Amino acid sequence: MAEERKNVIDPFGTSVISDYSHLFEEFGIQSISTVINKITRPGRYLRRGIDFAHRDFDKWLKKPEAAMSGIKPSGEFHLGSKMTAEELIYFQKEFGAKVYYCIADIEAFADNGISLEDGREFAVGNVADLMALGLDMDNAYIYRQSEELRVLRLAYLFGKRVTLNTLKGLYGPRELGLYNSALIQSGDILSPELDGLKNVLVPIGADQDPHIRLTRDLSQKFKEEYGFLEPACIIHKFFRALNGDSKMSKRDPSTYLLLSDSESVARKKVMSAMTGGRATWGEQQKLGGEADKCVIYELCKFHFTDDDKRLKEIHERCVGGKIPCGSCKKDVFDNEILPAMRSHQEKRAQSLEKARKIVDGKTT
Amino acid sequence: MAEERKNVIDPFGTSVISDYSHLFEEFGIQSISTVINKITRPGRYLRRGIDFAHRDFDKWLKKPEAAMSGIKPSGEFHLGSKMTAEELIYFQKEFGAKVYYCIADIEAFADNGISLEDGREFAVGNVADLMALGLDMDNAYIYRQSEELRVLRLAYLFGKRVTLNTLKGLYGPRELGLYNSALIQSGDILSPELDGLKNVLVPIGADQDPHIRLTRDLSQKFKEEYGFLEPACIIHKFFRALNGDSKMSKRDPSTYLLLSDSESVARKKVMSAMTGGRATWGEQQKLGGEADKCVIYELCKFHFTDDDKRLKEIHERCVGGKIPCGSCKKDVFDNEILPAMRSHQEKRAQSLEKARKIVDGKTT
Repeated sequence: MAEERKNVIDPFGTSVISDYSHLFEEFGIQSISTVINKITRPGRYLRRGIDFAHRDFDKWLKKPEAAMSGIKPSGEFHLGSKMTAEELIYFQKEFGAKVYYCIADIEAFADNGISLEDGREFAVGNVADLMALGLDMDNAYIYRQSEELRVLRLAYLFGKRVTLNTLKGLYGPRELGLYNSALIQSGDILSPELDGLKNVLVPIGADQDPHIRLTRDLSQKFKEEYGFLEPACIIHKFFRALNGDSKMSKRDPSTYLLLSDSESVARKKVMSAMTGGRATWGEQQKLGGEADKCVIYELCKFHFTDDDKRLKEIHERCVGGKIPCGSCKKDVFDNEILPAMRSHQEKRAQSLEKARKIVDGKTT
Repeated sequence: MAEERKNVIDPFGTSVISDYSHLFEEFGIQSISTVINKITRPGRYLRRGIDFAHRDFDKWLKKPEAAMSGIKPSGEFHLGSKMTAEELIYFQKEFGAKVYYCIADIEAFADNGISLEDGREFAVGNVADLMALGLDMDNAYIYRQSEELRVLRLAYLFGKRVTLNTLKGLYGPRELGLYNSALIQSGDILSPELDGLKNVLVPIGADQDPHIRLTRDLSQKFKEEYGFLEPACIIHKFFRALNGDSKMSKRDPSTYLLLSDSESVARKKVMSAMTGGRATWGEQQKLGGEADKCVIYELCKFHFTDDDKRLKEIHERCVGGKIPCGSCKKDVFDNEILPAMRSHQEKRAQSLEKARKIVDGKTT
């Protein structure tokens, strides 16, 4: 079994990727570095190397029609959901791409046993988060899988031209519900093309690459009927767990920040997060902190410090041994994280009513 | 592989059942004989032992709310499609059941590669046949799978609580498209229950029994969420191929009658059909014909001679050695089959326009 799954990156599981380099060889994704200098105003994830790879992103940039992603409505937005959402918003603002956002409630049932009703409630919060982060609803389409006939239909048709062996190769040995979730996700990704927007970009974490490979393959298998182009993707690194593990664990809330966390909960999580500090303050003054190993620095770099100059200051005071971790954490929490979370939570509260209407299909 | 599939009756394949008795033991279906005398006016299939078994038909008779079946839109109505249609119409007329009829266009794609567009065209003819046979459209609901969101959604949810091993046990080793077709069919069968009609009867051929077992199982696995009752079924014997084989072959049109066959084509098929005749006319006069082995007699019994007295005459002149097969065939074709086919084709032609509207969802 272990042998068989050697090359499987598991989007449904908890597998961890600490070394991204092998992905280039094994799966034929390309480095972002050759594309990045074609972009006038690269977003935070692009200019900081967090988006590290892509497929056909260069082609997409020539005609940036649609950007597509979604969420499994199984909880509140965490920093990973925020990352994807912000990428969509960037592509919408910077390139005028229409955003498609799927509430993957059928996958939430298949994978986590969350009922469609419960999924709908989670989705209201998720969509409010998306709006609070700045999505322009006038150039977006948000839908629940369970209500999207054309996607469900397409996914059943896909089942005709993919073998169980192929799915097993991509996802490991799974049950029907999970394999179907993958096909539905392919339908989601290709659905902008049903509206005539043939150039679709999907921002993903590296663990989601099997979905993109499957979807690109299916797009070509149904090219004759639907005229699909292969969707492009841009691939970001994971944001680590607050304790420094490679991936946060849903079972342990202290490993991740939720955008909905209260000030006291968030402060506690941040103050206990792993840093790049040395054994003693004396040693740290001498050698400097290891900012690039520090989750606090990563919080700034990925999420809360958009200003490059300010990020550089935080980095320098650390590696220069000028600030103890405790003081740095407090400063980062009070001046970077807390203001952002407060502002987000306010905007989110104001968006809830409209979000409910959108989720219920009463407006889009 | 052969071992593994011992108990598989294959609804997607061409397996043949010549001995029905083992089904009672293996699959726990019940004989129709104990139920039949509770029915005041049994239909042709019931009173002639063509409907030979059931599950919960007795329960259904206490509250006969809905009768459900469908067709894979892959060609014209043959005598098998006619049989199912007439059963539905009987349950509608005699018991007031609302008829649900599914155009299984997704299955036609998964199983036969027929596009949804082509399936729609076939469906127009199929629905016209159904109307010509006497379905009361005021108490019926006809839909295409590819347009029925609630069924497609339900089938994906079903995927969560059935294993690939269970499906393999029921259907043999198949690919995803076929397994999904089975789940969609379960959704079809349970869809009347979504309308509050909890007592559903499905008339089936014995090869379709795996679908019923799967559906009954799923109904109980989703009982908490949907309050499903187990659907009932009534099981008919196959009508044989015209050459006497146990099952007609789609690859060889001379083995079956289509309701749309021209007079000359139909006559040719009937005149070449297998009879229960003896080696010589002399022998036949002495021993009598074997009516119960004769496809011509079966055509009368199953399909074209509703009058029991007339059927008895046809049987007696045969077993009494009073008529050569050639003359009998001619008589049966001219006086039983041809008038019925002509009348059907006229009614069908008049129904086509309305059928198209129904298939296109413009009226139901």
